[in-house]
Amino acid sequence: VSVTAAKGFVAGGVHAGIRHSKPDLAIVRSEQPAVGAAMLSRNRVQAACLQVNREHLSLAEPQAVVINSGVANSATGERGKLDAIATAAEAGRLLDLDAEEVLVLSTGVIGVPLPMGKLLPGLRVATQALSPDGGTAAAEAIMTTDTKPKQAVAAGAGFTVGGMAKGSGMIHPNLATMLAIVTTDYPLEPGEAIEFLRPAVDESFNSISVDGDCSTNDAVILLANSASAVERTPAADLAFAACLRKVCADLAEQIVADGEGVTVLAEIAVTGAADDRQAKAIAQRIATSALVKTALFGRDANWGRVLMAAGSAPFNGGYAEVDIDRVTLSYNGSVVLERGAPLGVEPDVSGATCAIELDLGLGSGAASYLTSDLSYDYVRINADYRT
Amino acid sequence: VSVTAAKGFVAGGVHAGIRHSKPDLAIVRSEQPAVGAAMLSRNRVQAACLQVNREHLSLAEPQAVVINSGVANSATGERGKLDAIATAAEAGRLLDLDAEEVLVLSTGVIGVPLPMGKLLPGLRVATQALSPDGGTAAAEAIMTTDTKPKQAVAAGAGFTVGGMAKGSGMIHPNLATMLAIVTTDYPLEPGEAIEFLRPAVDESFNSISVDGDCSTNDAVILLANSASAVERTPAADLAFAACLRKVCADLAEQIVADGEGVTVLAEIAVTGAADDRQAKAIAQRIATSALVKTALFGRDANWGRVLMAAGSAPFNGGYAEVDIDRVTLSYNGSVVLERGAPLGVEPDVSGATCAIELDLGLGSGAASYLTSDLSYDYVRINADYRT
Repeated sequence: VSVTAAKGFVAGGVHAGIRHSKPDLAIVRSEQPAVGAAMLSRNRVQAACLQVNREHLSLAEPQAVVINSGVANSATGERGKLDAIATAAEAGRLLDLDAEEVLVLSTGVIGVPLPMGKLLPGLRVATQALSPDGGTAAAEAIMTTDTKPKQAVAAGAGFTVGGMAKGSGMIHPNLATMLAIVTTDYPLEPGEAIEFLRPAVDESFNSISVDGDCSTNDAVILLANSASAVERTPAADLAFAACLRKVCADLAEQIVADGEGVTVLAEIAVTGAADDRQAKAIAQRIATSALVKTALFGRDANWGRVLMAAGSAPFNGGYAEVDIDRVTLSYNGSVVLERGAPLGVEPDVSGATCAIELDLGLGSGAASYLTSDLSYDYVRINADYRT
Repeated sequence: VSVTAAKGFVAGGVHAGIRHSKPDLAIVRSEQPAVGAAMLSRNRVQAACLQVNREHLSLAEPQAVVINSGVANSATGERGKLDAIATAAEAGRLLDLDAEEVLVLSTGVIGVPLPMGKLLPGLRVATQALSPDGGTAAAEAIMTTDTKPKQAVAAGAGFTVGGMAKGSGMIHPNLATMLAIVTTDYPLEPGEAIEFLRPAVDESFNSISVDGDCSTNDAVILLANSASAVERTPAADLAFAACLRKVCADLAEQIVADGEGVTVLAEIAVTGAADDRQAKAIAQRIATSALVKTALFGRDANWGRVLMAAGSAPFNGGYAEVDIDRVTLSYNGSVVLERGAPLGVEPDVSGATCAIELDLGLGSGAASYLTSDLSYDYVRINADYRT
């Protein structure tokens, strides 16, 4: 159950000394030629490593990923870019790859330069640690405030998809950076990886709300090395896509569930929107509303807050379409509002999960979002992290 | 210092029984023919009273405003609309005005109908209480979780602008409803009030962040009755506009400062943006970021979070323009990042106010936003309110 579950992948995680005592450096590589794709943060402030990765992805297919925790290498100026390039070059030398075949990810404090005197020697140790059994060590080395490593696997007929992620649900010591590495031995041609990755990410990592903040370092990377002997057919492609979605969704759910301070996982399902994009805007607005999230923490089916959020979902410079007279809303299957009329029902929301279903009655647009509550611990950890 | 500071306005606040023991019903009226304007919530879910107000404003100049606290009359279906109409009609009868000359505002729990059996008799008592000295009673009657009434006044040469507001900074038992009534004896012609009100609101009530949530009931109303004998000149108009801005800004600041759980007031000043709209998008994104606000609570000059927020400010379907290499950022006058390079400075942010200045170095766009921290008490109050 790890990033090395698929044939032909090795990984390792070690302590390079970037952080005080925890493992802080991981490598994932394919042992045979792979193709790959990456979805990187769209934040206008890009960590140095993401800038370098974009360049590398334009030049070559990625064969290995280096990830360090502890320092984000973001807002580090020209030096940060040179450090990311040097990291890829040294990893390439050790792994017998071109520098452009190596992607570099960082997560941690921003505005602080990478300690290259520790990172470069650490790469040698990490390379020596590479093994088909090293997936869990790698998943541990990329953790920051995560309380447990996040790994997932899904197997199809003759092929496997595996992955690891780090991310902080609601919380991160610095920027809620979300990283995921997904590997597969399913055979993909160059250029195909992104076509499979994008929809899987949209409905998993892009449909979870942490705290509405988008890191400068977020990245999801897919490596596919064709090590399985599977024959490509339309049916096999569909099976692969399903496995990829499953692994991404599994990792995304683990991220939300592991958010420090999280006491409730809530799924916001929006149906009947004018179109899918408006459904997603509304689901996201509900999932990120501080008032909705504190009500979840208080186990309060405060549905007025859901309506308030639904009515103010930014869309095309205004708000997404809502007609209160057509809205039906339920909590855990109990309808509280039917076509705009409150029913006086008090649903049970005392559990650790909550299903909020909002039917707008306008069209066929639908979307769902996974979110969590906003608790005292969220405030505590984010207020305290540097002190 | 109240909504009756300008000549020719009376107000009153009474206990009608909508709430258990606190005053809950207020009236503000002009004693002579007034012109007026309103800026109402753009939330797609509109409280019944706002729907009625839009209709009234299209038919007549407003002469009086009725405000109840305790029940928001939102998500109350057709009945809610009829209740708002009946409220305006009864107030009009008592005040000798057409129903269309009365605006009705409500704030409180949503999904619950107005208790008309208490509200209608209360209107008679409130009408009897109307007086030039009734401003503070009115300001108290519209409070919900506000800990103090919010009033402001500014005087020009021969004229006065006065106002009251309620709102909850970060907190409201239900929807963070923000209401403000501003009155003046400055002479305005029909149609002019909105021209003066809009810019004053944009840089005050629309430039404060509470928790990023936008109520279904938010409203700002201006009544101008020409009771001063001031002669209209371009200079007098400018002086009036300045007084109006001052009253709105004063009330807006009182709203943020009174947010329960607020321990820090922060002004986010964005300069050097590509244009003013992008500056405002960026300032708003910073001001509403949970990570920025928890850092403020922790007295942590965690400037990486400000950059993260700045780089992900929604604008035109993407993010507003930021080039990290041109960004200069300071806290309380201490520069922490200069043209993209961190300076290793640790500014003092231990006080009860914090000035965050972000210069994007791109153009001449500027905007500022007033915000507060996100504290334990915010979570406590919003998680607990109905239980």
